[in-house]
Amino acid sequence: MSQTSRPVDTIRAVEWVDGCVELLDQRRLPKDRKNLRLKSVTQVADAIKKMVVRGAPAIGITAAYGVVLAAKQAFRRAGVKWREDIEPDLERLAQARPTAANLHWAIERMRARFPSIEGEPEMPLLREARAIHDEDIVANRRMGKLGASLINPGARIITHCNTGSLATGGFGTALGVVRTAYADKRILSVYASETRPWLQGARLTAWELVEDKIPVSLIADGAAAYLMQQQSIDWVIVGADRIVANGDVANKIGTYNLAVAAKMHGVGFMVVAPSSTFDMDISTGGEIDIEHRSASELLKIGARSVAADGAQAWNPVFDITPASLVDYIVTEKGIIDRPTTVKVAAVIADG
Amino acid sequence: MSQTSRPVDTIRAVEWVDGCVELLDQRRLPKDRKNLRLKSVTQVADAIKKMVVRGAPAIGITAAYGVVLAAKQAFRRAGVKWREDIEPDLERLAQARPTAANLHWAIERMRARFPSIEGEPEMPLLREARAIHDEDIVANRRMGKLGASLINPGARIITHCNTGSLATGGFGTALGVVRTAYADKRILSVYASETRPWLQGARLTAWELVEDKIPVSLIADGAAAYLMQQQSIDWVIVGADRIVANGDVANKIGTYNLAVAAKMHGVGFMVVAPSSTFDMDISTGGEIDIEHRSASELLKIGARSVAADGAQAWNPVFDITPASLVDYIVTEKGIIDRPTTVKVAAVIADG
Repeated sequence: MSQTSRPVDTIRAVEWVDGCVELLDQRRLPKDRKNLRLKSVTQVADAIKKMVVRGAPAIGITAAYGVVLAAKQAFRRAGVKWREDIEPDLERLAQARPTAANLHWAIERMRARFPSIEGEPEMPLLREARAIHDEDIVANRRMGKLGASLINPGARIITHCNTGSLATGGFGTALGVVRTAYADKRILSVYASETRPWLQGARLTAWELVEDKIPVSLIADGAAAYLMQQQSIDWVIVGADRIVANGDVANKIGTYNLAVAAKMHGVGFMVVAPSSTFDMDISTGGEIDIEHRSASELLKIGARSVAADGAQAWNPVFDITPASLVDYIVTEKGIIDRPTTVKVAAVIADG
Repeated sequence: MSQTSRPVDTIRAVEWVDGCVELLDQRRLPKDRKNLRLKSVTQVADAIKKMVVRGAPAIGITAAYGVVLAAKQAFRRAGVKWREDIEPDLERLAQARPTAANLHWAIERMRARFPSIEGEPEMPLLREARAIHDEDIVANRRMGKLGASLINPGARIITHCNTGSLATGGFGTALGVVRTAYADKRILSVYASETRPWLQGARLTAWELVEDKIPVSLIADGAAAYLMQQQSIDWVIVGADRIVANGDVANKIGTYNLAVAAKMHGVGFMVVAPSSTFDMDISTGGEIDIEHRSASELLKIGARSVAADGAQAWNPVFDITPASLVDYIVTEKGIIDRPTTVKVAAVIADG
C-alpha cells in the first residue's frame, strides 16, 4: 500500500487508479488525508473490514473494483478457468462486512457479467465496476432532488453518521439531500450527531459540510431528543445499510433512537438510499444479520483505555428501524411514502 | 494543591482532611487516582466549575465544606464581621455550576447556621458540613432499599452517567439502588451508557461497578433504544441534578432520550435523588437554568481535535425529562409514584 495526498475538492472515497483500488483512509480523517493504493482483492477485503472505507454504497463500489482485481489475479493463476478460481476471493470479499446490502449486490452484479466475458476479464469487469460507480453518483444526484422536494424552506434537520461523498460514489445519500436542499435555500440549520463509537458524524460529516460551507453543529448522540424538545426540528435524514421488503431499515447504531425520538416529537423521518441497498429476499428487519464489533471500540478511545479493566461492552454497529417509524424512503427510482411491503415492491421490484 | 493517592476501598469523592477540602480528581479516573487538597474557597469553586468533582449531591457536599473554608478566611480577614465579608465568596461558589440544586441547597443550609454562631465560625460550620455529608450517605442507603424494593428479580437495567459513590457523599443514588438490588439478587445485568461528552458512564460508573464485582456492559448512548428493542430491559434508573415542584427532572444530557425510549418500549423509568435535589420554588422544568458548556467538549477528545475546524457544537450538559415520562422518583423521604405537583409536595414539602 502506498500513500498519496490530494486536494479536498477532488476527494473520492474510492477510485480506480492505474490498475489499483485507491481508498481514502477514512479512519484518519479529518486530520490526515491519505490514500491507500490496493493491488490485491485480499487487501480490498481487509480494508473494508477495517473500515478504511465505510458507508454501504462506497463499500459496494469498492467491492466491485475488488472483483476486477480478483479476476485479474484469477486469470493470471488459472487462465480461462478464472471463473472457478475466483470464487474463494469473492466469498472473502462478501464476508468482509455482513450488514451492508450493497456489498453483496455489487458482487452479484459483477458476477452476472462473468458468463459473457471472453479472454481476459479485467477490462470488461472494470467497465462494469465503473458503471456501478457512475450510476451511484447519478442516483445520489437524483435522490438529492427528490428528497429536497419534500423539505419546506426554513427547515432544521438532524443527520446521523456519514452519508456524504465519503460514504458513496460521490455526493451522498442523506447528505446529498442536505446539500441539495441547502443549495435550494430550504435548510436553516444542520445538526450532526457525533455517532459513537467511530465518530463518523464528528469526523466525516462535519468535515464534508464545513468544506461545502454549510454551517453544522455537532451534538452528542444522547442530546438528539432534547434538541427536538427545545427547538423546532423538522427532519431527521439518514442513510441505510440495508432496507428489506417491508421497509424496515438497518442503519448505523443510533438511527433507531432518532426514529423513536422523532416519532415522539412529530419530526419527519426520511431515509435516503439507492435501490442497491434494498434486500428484497428478506421480508422483515428482524432477519437482518447485524454486525457486532469489538468491545474495545467502546472501552478505548484510540489507543487509550477509558473504561476500567473488567468492564464489558455491547457494541452493535447497526440497528433496525421498523418501517412504521419511517415517513419516507427516498430512492433514485422514486419516493416511498410510509413504506409497506406493497409500496416498496411497487418502487423497487417493479420500478 | 497537593496530590496524594489512596486505596480504592476508601474512595470518597470529597472529604474534609486536615483543614482542607480533599477531592478525588474525577477527570483523571479511572486511570489515575489522585486527590487534590484545596485550601481556599476560590479553589473549591474552581474545582466544581472544572468538574474535578461532579454529581449534584457531591457538588453540594463540596460546597458545604467550601463554605467552611470561606468562613475561616472571612474571619481571618474581617473578624466578627465575617458574615458580610463572606458574601462574595458564597456568590462565587453558588455560580460555579448553575443546574445542580444541591449546590444552592447546601450553601443556604450552611448560611442558616450563621446567625447562631459566636466567635470563630470554622468548627460549628464544619459540624454542619459533616452533617450534610453524613445525612447524604444515610439518604443513599435508604433510597437504595426503597428503590430496590420496586425491582423484580431477574431485572435488566440501564443506568446513565455516574450516580455512585463518586457523585454523592458515598454509596450513590441510582447506583445505590443498583448496588442494593444486585446484593438482593434482583439484578441480572447492568448496562451503562457511556455518557458523552465526559464519558462518566465509561470512566466512572464502569469503574465503580467493576470494583464492586457487579458485571457491567457499556453501550454507546445511541444504542439504548435498540437495546430495549432487542432485549427485555426492565428499568432505566438515573439520578437527578434538579427536580422541580411538578416532578420534572433535570439530569445529565441523554436522560430524556432514555425516558422517551423507555416509554416507547414499556420500560420502567426510575429517578433516584435525595430531597436536597428538589427545587420547590420552580414549578416546571422549562424554568430550570440548563448549563451549556464549551463546544470543544464535542469538537475534541482530550487535547485532540476530532471535528473539522469550522464545525460548531450544541452542548447542553443536562436535559429535562417531563414528569409524565417518570414512573417513580425515589427519595429518602419516600417514593413518589407517577409524580405530580400534589404528590411531590406530599413527600418533599410536608415529608
